[in-house]
Amino acid sequence: MANQNNQILKNTNAQILDEFNASIMFDKELYAQDIKGSIAHSQMLCEQGILTLEEQKSIESGLLQVKNEIESGEFKFSLAYEDIHMAVENRLTEIIGEPGKRLHTARSRNDQVATDFRLYVQDKSISIKSQLKELVETFVNIARKYTTTLIPGMTHLQHAQPLNFGYHLLAYANMFKRDFERFESSYERNNYCPLGSAALAGTPHNINRDSTSQKLGFISPTIHAMDTVSDRDFALEILFNISTCMMHISRISEELILWSSYEFQFVRMSDEYATTSSIMPQKKNPDVPELLRGKTGRVYGNLISLLTVMKGLPLAYNKDTQEDKEGVFDSVKTVEISISILNEVIKTMIVNTDKMENACKIGHLSATDLADFLVQKQNMPFRTAYYITKDVVTKANELKKDISELTIDEIRSASSELKDVSEEIVMYLDLRNSMNARNSFGGTSSMQTESQIKYFEEWLSK
Amino acid sequence: MANQNNQILKNTNAQILDEFNASIMFDKELYAQDIKGSIAHSQMLCEQGILTLEEQKSIESGLLQVKNEIESGEFKFSLAYEDIHMAVENRLTEIIGEPGKRLHTARSRNDQVATDFRLYVQDKSISIKSQLKELVETFVNIARKYTTTLIPGMTHLQHAQPLNFGYHLLAYANMFKRDFERFESSYERNNYCPLGSAALAGTPHNINRDSTSQKLGFISPTIHAMDTVSDRDFALEILFNISTCMMHISRISEELILWSSYEFQFVRMSDEYATTSSIMPQKKNPDVPELLRGKTGRVYGNLISLLTVMKGLPLAYNKDTQEDKEGVFDSVKTVEISISILNEVIKTMIVNTDKMENACKIGHLSATDLADFLVQKQNMPFRTAYYITKDVVTKANELKKDISELTIDEIRSASSELKDVSEEIVMYLDLRNSMNARNSFGGTSSMQTESQIKYFEEWLSK
Amino acid sequence: MANQNNQILKNTNAQILDEFNASIMFDKELYAQDIKGSIAHSQMLCEQGILTLEEQKSIESGLLQVKNEIESGEFKFSLAYEDIHMAVENRLTEIIGEPGKRLHTARSRNDQVATDFRLYVQDKSISIKSQLKELVETFVNIARKYTTTLIPGMTHLQHAQPLNFGYHLLAYANMFKRDFERFESSYERNNYCPLGSAALAGTPHNINRDSTSQKLGFISPTIHAMDTVSDRDFALEILFNISTCMMHISRISEELILWSSYEFQFVRMSDEYATTSSIMPQKKNPDVPELLRGKTGRVYGNLISLLTVMKGLPLAYNKDTQEDKEGVFDSVKTVEISISILNEVIKTMIVNTDKMENACKIGHLSATDLADFLVQKQNMPFRTAYYITKDVVTKANELKKDISELTIDEIRSASSELKDVSEEIVMYLDLRNSMNARNSFGGTSSMQTESQIKYFEEWLSK
Amino acid sequence: MANQNNQILKNTNAQILDEFNASIMFDKELYAQDIKGSIAHSQMLCEQGILTLEEQKSIESGLLQVKNEIESGEFKFSLAYEDIHMAVENRLTEIIGEPGKRLHTARSRNDQVATDFRLYVQDKSISIKSQLKELVETFVNIARKYTTTLIPGMTHLQHAQPLNFGYHLLAYANMFKRDFERFESSYERNNYCPLGSAALAGTPHNINRDSTSQKLGFISPTIHAMDTVSDRDFALEILFNISTCMMHISRISEELILWSSYEFQFVRMSDEYATTSSIMPQKKNPDVPELLRGKTGRVYGNLISLLTVMKGLPLAYNKDTQEDKEGVFDSVKTVEISISILNEVIKTMIVNTDKMENACKIGHLSATDLADFLVQKQNMPFRTAYYITKDVVTKANELKKDISELTIDEIRSASSELKDVSEEIVMYLDLRNSMNARNSFGGTSSMQTESQIKYFEEWLSK
Repeated sequence: MANQNNQILKNTNAQILDEFNASIMFDKELYAQDIKGSIAHSQMLCEQGILTLEEQKSIESGLLQVKNEIESGEFKFSLAYEDIHMAVENRLTEIIGEPGKRLHTARSRNDQVATDFRLYVQDKSISIKSQLKELVETFVNIARKYTTTLIPGMTHLQHAQPLNFGYHLLAYANMFKRDFERFESSYERNNYCPLGSAALAGTPHNINRDSTSQKLGFISPTIHAMDTVSDRDFALEILFNISTCMMHISRISEELILWSSYEFQFVRMSDEYATTSSIMPQKKNPDVPELLRGKTGRVYGNLISLLTVMKGLPLAYNKDTQEDKEGVFDSVKTVEISISILNEVIKTMIVNTDKMENACKIGHLSATDLADFLVQKQNMPFRTAYYITKDVVTKANELKKDISELTIDEIRSASSELKDVSEEIVMYLDLRNSMNARNSFGGTSSMQTESQIKYFEEWLSK
Repeated sequence: MANQNNQILKNTNAQILDEFNASIMFDKELYAQDIKGSIAHSQMLCEQGILTLEEQKSIESGLLQVKNEIESGEFKFSLAYEDIHMAVENRLTEIIGEPGKRLHTARSRNDQVATDFRLYVQDKSISIKSQLKELVETFVNIARKYTTTLIPGMTHLQHAQPLNFGYHLLAYANMFKRDFERFESSYERNNYCPLGSAALAGTPHNINRDSTSQKLGFISPTIHAMDTVSDRDFALEILFNISTCMMHISRISEELILWSSYEFQFVRMSDEYATTSSIMPQKKNPDVPELLRGKTGRVYGNLISLLTVMKGLPLAYNKDTQEDKEGVFDSVKTVEISISILNEVIKTMIVNTDKMENACKIGHLSATDLADFLVQKQNMPFRTAYYITKDVVTKANELKKDISELTIDEIRSASSELKDVSEEIVMYLDLRNSMNARNSFGGTSSMQTESQIKYFEEWLSK
Repeated sequence: MANQNNQILKNTNAQILDEFNASIMFDKELYAQDIKGSIAHSQMLCEQGILTLEEQKSIESGLLQVKNEIESGEFKFSLAYEDIHMAVENRLTEIIGEPGKRLHTARSRNDQVATDFRLYVQDKSISIKSQLKELVETFVNIARKYTTTLIPGMTHLQHAQPLNFGYHLLAYANMFKRDFERFESSYERNNYCPLGSAALAGTPHNINRDSTSQKLGFISPTIHAMDTVSDRDFALEILFNISTCMMHISRISEELILWSSYEFQFVRMSDEYATTSSIMPQKKNPDVPELLRGKTGRVYGNLISLLTVMKGLPLAYNKDTQEDKEGVFDSVKTVEISISILNEVIKTMIVNTDKMENACKIGHLSATDLADFLVQKQNMPFRTAYYITKDVVTKANELKKDISELTIDEIRSASSELKDVSEEIVMYLDLRNSMNARNSFGGTSSMQTESQIKYFEEWLSK
Repeated sequence: MANQNNQILKNTNAQILDEFNASIMFDKELYAQDIKGSIAHSQMLCEQGILTLEEQKSIESGLLQVKNEIESGEFKFSLAYEDIHMAVENRLTEIIGEPGKRLHTARSRNDQVATDFRLYVQDKSISIKSQLKELVETFVNIARKYTTTLIPGMTHLQHAQPLNFGYHLLAYANMFKRDFERFESSYERNNYCPLGSAALAGTPHNINRDSTSQKLGFISPTIHAMDTVSDRDFALEILFNISTCMMHISRISEELILWSSYEFQFVRMSDEYATTSSIMPQKKNPDVPELLRGKTGRVYGNLISLLTVMKGLPLAYNKDTQEDKEGVFDSVKTVEISISILNEVIKTMIVNTDKMENACKIGHLSATDLADFLVQKQNMPFRTAYYITKDVVTKANELKKDISELTIDEIRSASSELKDVSEEIVMYLDLRNSMNARNSFGGTSSMQTESQIKYFEEWLSK
């Protein structure tokens, strides 16, 4: 009886242990890459005379059958297989017998895992890049509509200078373009094939790594087996690229949340992207940008997780590294859905141009223009012009007007230094003129904004 | 009396507040970049007719004087200046008077800070790259001496297969080369000039951003002012590159600590890089690699700090961003000193080749060679060969021998499948033969190792 | 000549190495704790007959002299001493000779460091607790003034229900009280004395750990020497407590920034706590709350740094642990100044009650009251009442009124289910009534708010 | 046709959005807490006359039926329900009709979520505490067997002083006891009931929060509704407690990995907890401790994730907070399985006491005893004794002996200061004597170790 209990206990422990050790419940995500890698490996083995053509054909068709079984939902994933690689190999051997056992010649689980995971990261880098391009296009398309719509440009969340709304949106086009470039760069830097590194030191078999590398779309094989099986830099890079991208997403989300508030009312989320309250029927909540902002946390966490895992690991492979995948899968899914949703949110948002333009009349947005006028036209040192401008602002406040609404007499009376100032100045204080005056390269003028849109159009068409 | 106390209290608060707001105590690090940027700005203003030649000359020589004062220690940094930019400008105006006040024309502290900080990051990317190249060279030089010295290759910290020690060291050459490439890539991606972006929207002044960009060594000006003043991607990238590099340093440090232990005794730190105990006179501690390993923590922390700061910030500039610099300065200094010290540690370590070679005789390191032999010469499926090898290992354990020490008769008696196996097999089990057998591209054989050394020599000579 | 160059090179390396190894440039922060610990140790050694009374007296007065020298700025810290402990001991021996060398009897640098650092953390826990209490008091004091001032309560940054502003402020009193409790709890949990643990295993000397523990204000000695010298849980706890506290500070800072914007105008920072722009003279920027929000990043970073350092360290002491202090010092200073500054910001902010009250008239803040009325008075299921309320909101929108401004006829005409609704309902929709209706325990009514203020007054008086 | 495509596209977007918004796929984990909370709420509503007894009975039995359906797997979770709370409420209303719609009276999803999640965290704190107690017991039980077995105590991974192995294990008992205390403390600090806080401001209904609080096992209701719905301190605390606990687990894992290496051979994992290589049949890998060490990364990541999410959120509820749960669920499951597995690993490990004892003869472990002897018996200052000991170590190295193996003549000849030293000293250098000499409170002597075991036995029996 006691024995029986012990047996049950042992079984329970064994099961917990299996769950603990096994990676199959998450690394099944890699089935397509695993099968692709195995087919390439078998073809190369055949080219090198290590497998007969018959054996190779049998392996290849068996692997494709396994793939079908997985994709049709027929395949039963079980903890007993431990990982996707054993699951595929075992099923292959069930189907084709003896030759299935020859597939693992001249490779090890270490280089197999490294290859599958790297293929996944490379595949995803390409698809995320393509999503980012679409997102940039959306920002550019919406920006094109609003190159003359005024919006208060802010620093410190305080009104600073008038911008056009199209220009504001293009700031994000720039950020997501940089993200695109980072994915492109890490893709190139890591596009080398681990297969053939074997456990840690290469193999005595007469393999041809160039062949598998080429079949799998890599530039060439990696040049050091031991480094390769323990290298997870490519995974860290995608985690970092995603973190930076989500950080940018969190910034536009913050702005969308602010702009949707009663206080701002610059934009409204389309009904699809706003939700209601379970007890307050009048509310429309910007849940979607809030969630986008919140999801920044998890991708930062995934980055720090893998950095922590890799710290201080001796060479070569250690089981700790099994912890590399879930975080990457999670970050990839998070950024994919986030870009996709943000794209729709931006496309469908309702812009309240009246509110934006009216808001520009608060905060003396053209005050810098006054200072710049004094510098340019009166050849005053900037620091002096700055203090005179302060006097005009004070005057405007006394009159309860915005500086853009002052008459020439009011301006002249604000400071003894201005008593003879040219009437021209009134024009300089006009808000739209103020926006268009910032016509230096990269500035907010409608002309510069149009030219930036062209820049992006060219980039997008490449 | 109460009033007087209030005044004192107010002063105390004011002082705390000054300390809190001011960045000068850390951003003085940027003095050289600030002055360089201001000189370029003044030259451009002069080219554009905004400053007279006389004014510009006066500004330039004044700025150079300020630089001298700082470098000679004469300059008194004070909280009153708030930041390095005001400190330099104020002193300039003290020295040259009126023209000093004209320097700030057509720029803002926002683009000035962005320029100075980016110049710093770019400068440091170059110098770290050069340090990394030296470090790779050291690994290659030491590797060259040990291409035939056996060391047990490990996975899971268990003996796995025999390597040569040179090959082991080259794994790190690969890692640090990848680090080099990351610094190179982020340098290129961020090599655009913020100056002229002004506060957030450009400037109405007729400036020439191409000119300043060129003078400061950038490719071209950034293309969007608002994005530019709020962009800290370049800072995140250097923090990430440093994190990955320190992670690699933590791995070689872990190995040096293990190898220095009584249990391993593979290497000894030179006396310079090992310290003694305050109460145990017999001890020589590998403090230096321990500290290198420990310093990984701080650079991870600096990365997560800035990611946290940037999350959810609305455009454009917010004061939060002032928190971007200290972490970057700290990570840069940490990685600089760490690479420098590691370089010396590797150069001066004393290698105990006897211990390494003897260690190879434990753990049946050539077991895979037996399996590979059966696959290659007997055309056995790998999985079958694997189980036969297990029998031979069992036999060797019974005889208290390493598998590399078995005679042909002992091997033949280990499994019925081996009773007629060719005598040749004994040669395959020899440890040095085993190492050299892994002659696939990227493998550990002395020949492959030599060829990798050539690869690095070529890379280093570029 | 070459030799001379080598010597110079060697010296440079040695200097870099000294800088790398030495902790004195930051751990001098611990001088007071180190001297306090050494005095207690010498007294105990004397009690146990290990030192003569004369020797002890000489040591104690010597240590006090060193302390004076440090505090007067007379003491020259030098890298040569490596750490504060050697610096103090060496100077002591210079002053008093022979007996100075006896001080280190029955202790090691490992337990000495652990003791000094723990004393620091305990001291700081107490002072931060006291600052937090002051901060809670400030929130309570300001809250007391505004228990009847309406402010729109928000969820998702959307107006939801009317609150009183005092109530809103008390939410923060609750957060900072929880922070207080966490510092209190970690203080208690870690209030055990490391001294006497020696290097890792205790000492053969006849020491009395209870005596030193008591002299230093600990509850009792730690119970396991090896655990003690490698334990940094107490440091992690203070880093976590600070992180949570700064997270709370970042939330009120975010609100202050929002409230200071032109769109909200609920509060204004006093001039002391707002700064101006270098090019926009009209601006008043909420730099202080922005910096407070930004500083959250660095304390999160310090937490993750130490967690990273401690991961996977074998027992007992490793030099990696030297990296434990700078992050703690930095987080402690950050939270100290942040609490102090926030306290002043809150005390001095100018509250615009008109803006707050007017804002309540946007967004149908009493819509839930309508639903609740229907449930309570008409015995309707909540879900049904919810949909009727939606109809009334629609009606109000058509009339361009807030729901609180509807007449009884307008309400009755909004839904067939309301055609006979009692006139009483109008009273329920009044905003101040709505606020006061939420009179459940913990609710926003002025009565509940007053009672919470009393709760805090009692807590503060303890 | 175009229209139809648009419709399909719209549906796809809608589905992606549902997936993005919905939390049901992870928050179903909270079903038991949700139903428990709803039953308590309905009972209170009935006590207060808000529900009739009949309605309450119907609700309660309906909820229990939903629970059965979930636990039997009959319940179909669907994205359409969005979250577990709506899923349960909708199904309830399907079963019992009208009264189901009354359940949500006087509560909001905000306080409901806060209550469910807090109940989960509290439940898990209790169960983890109980696991930790078991783990401490295991360490104590194994320690009891080895209180006289020598093992080299290490600092810097270098042999330092002889310990007994039982003592070494007790270091971990101390760490896990501290973890227990942290869970206990956070449990107490957060044991307050959110229910009745409603959306953010309480409710006008005449509820009794004391009643629900008591029914759900809390001490009392939380005192501020707005703070309560936005407070996630309790979640951060469990994430931090788990991080610290996993950090401790990573340390013992590191030691198990080291001890399992060929170089150490101090312990062997039982076959159940070691795995084999796919290509190296001779290998037994310590995968389990490696995975335990690796899993530290993910719990650190989860902590930083939630800290990031909470940073800078304005009051009260924001959708970002929905990101609070997955990380907590993941960390809880990780620590649960990790403690459970570690417990078995420790119980079943095979200890090689010969290897441990032999290892003590390397490294002059009793060198400090020599110094201590000179201090105690010869009244030498410690610093002087230290240098004499160094001479004896040098002598022993010349003789290729360990210091514990020196004869009295050899000792006397090592230094002129020792030429008359008492023969007694030989006894002091014996390794077991050295271990037992460290008999100060908390020291490693067998006597102190036994007394610590008693301390833990008492603690465990509480």
